Amino acid sequence: MPKITQAKIAILATDGYEQLELTQPLEKLKAAGATVHVVSLEAGQIKGWDKDHWGDNVAVDKTLSEVSVSDYDALVLPGGQINPDTLRTDDKAVAFIRDFYNSKKTLAAICHAPWLLIEAGVIRDRDVTSFKSIKTDVTNAGGRWHDQEVVTDQALITSRNPDDLPAFIAKIIEEVEEGRHEQRQAA
Amino acid sequence: MPKITQAKIAILATDGYEQLELTQPLEKLKAAGATVHVVSLEAGQIKGWDKDHWGDNVAVDKTLSEVSVSDYDALVLPGGQINPDTLRTDDKAVAFIRDFYNSKKTLAAICHAPWLLIEAGVIRDRDVTSFKSIKTDVTNAGGRWHDQEVVTDQALITSRNPDDLPAFIAKIIEEVEEGRHEQRQAA
Repeated sequence: MPKITQAKIAILATDGYEQLELTQPLEKLKAAGATVHVVSLEAGQIKGWDKDHWGDNVAVDKTLSEVSVSDYDALVLPGGQINPDTLRTDDKAVAFIRDFYNSKKTLAAICHAPWLLIEAGVIRDRDVTSFKSIKTDVTNAGGRWHDQEVVTDQALITSRNPDDLPAFIAKIIEEVEEGRHEQRQAA
Repeated sequence: MPKITQAKIAILATDGYEQLELTQPLEKLKAAGATVHVVSLEAGQIKGWDKDHWGDNVAVDKTLSEVSVSDYDALVLPGGQINPDTLRTDDKAVAFIRDFYNSKKTLAAICHAPWLLIEAGVIRDRDVTSFKSIKTDVTNAGGRWHDQEVVTDQALITSRNPDDLPAFIAKIIEEVEEGRHEQRQAA
């Protein structure tokens, strides 16, 4: 079982991620001792969304074509209205998320990021939550939706909004330290 | 059968509508002789989204609490990533759309606005299109998705993106002049 201090964690996002939903996991998981990479479609920087306006940029550490599922112990998907709606149209991003799910390692999505779980086809019959606006999309995709700050189903971790970040991040650390979830069924 | 010059048309939106998807129907339907009202959740102005940044404001003519389905011959729903995601969390907005659908009058949604048709529960077994990113949400909700500039199913009109606006607006005028679609089944 990996300690969080030995863990490698990817955060996959593009422009329009809800700022705190990327920066908080990045800072807190690094502070806990993990190696954390911001992964995106292209090299350079990506632009955050701060409640109702464009926010700060963050540096991209790796592009999707430079990484593979085996490089990481966990994958974190920030939300925002814009970021996951854009990412879900990228076949490589969706395939990476699906492959990560099938690897049985920790996969965490917050806010609007469960749209990416829908697109990857990995949400059916899973216990999950999401931002309230996409509850119908989640349930139509076969997810069992719960109004809780964090829902965990076989190392698939979901939360509702930025207020849930402390519970979301704590659960990521806990699940990474538990290791692979062999009982998770393939999609 | 109402002529377009006698028609009253509502455009329902809030902040973050894709700018051309509100302003073009507003201008073109007015130019065709229709009375067109911008309807929103609150009085004042709402703010457009211009591709990748906040755009121009438009004045709200009526709030949702000031209007009823019987006031209008057609309802137009602009898209954008932000506007429909916000509107779908408003019970009154969703009920208005559902009631409009059940009135068998012309209902038109473009780009990301079919999320509102999903939320209103009126898309099952209907032929529709949408912005490509939400195709999976549309099909999971039971819609039959087509990659066409405009799809019409019993006066339910849908288009994919701003490039489709000329065909979208022409079809709204055509369907308004055809009148109610009595064969449309209730949701």
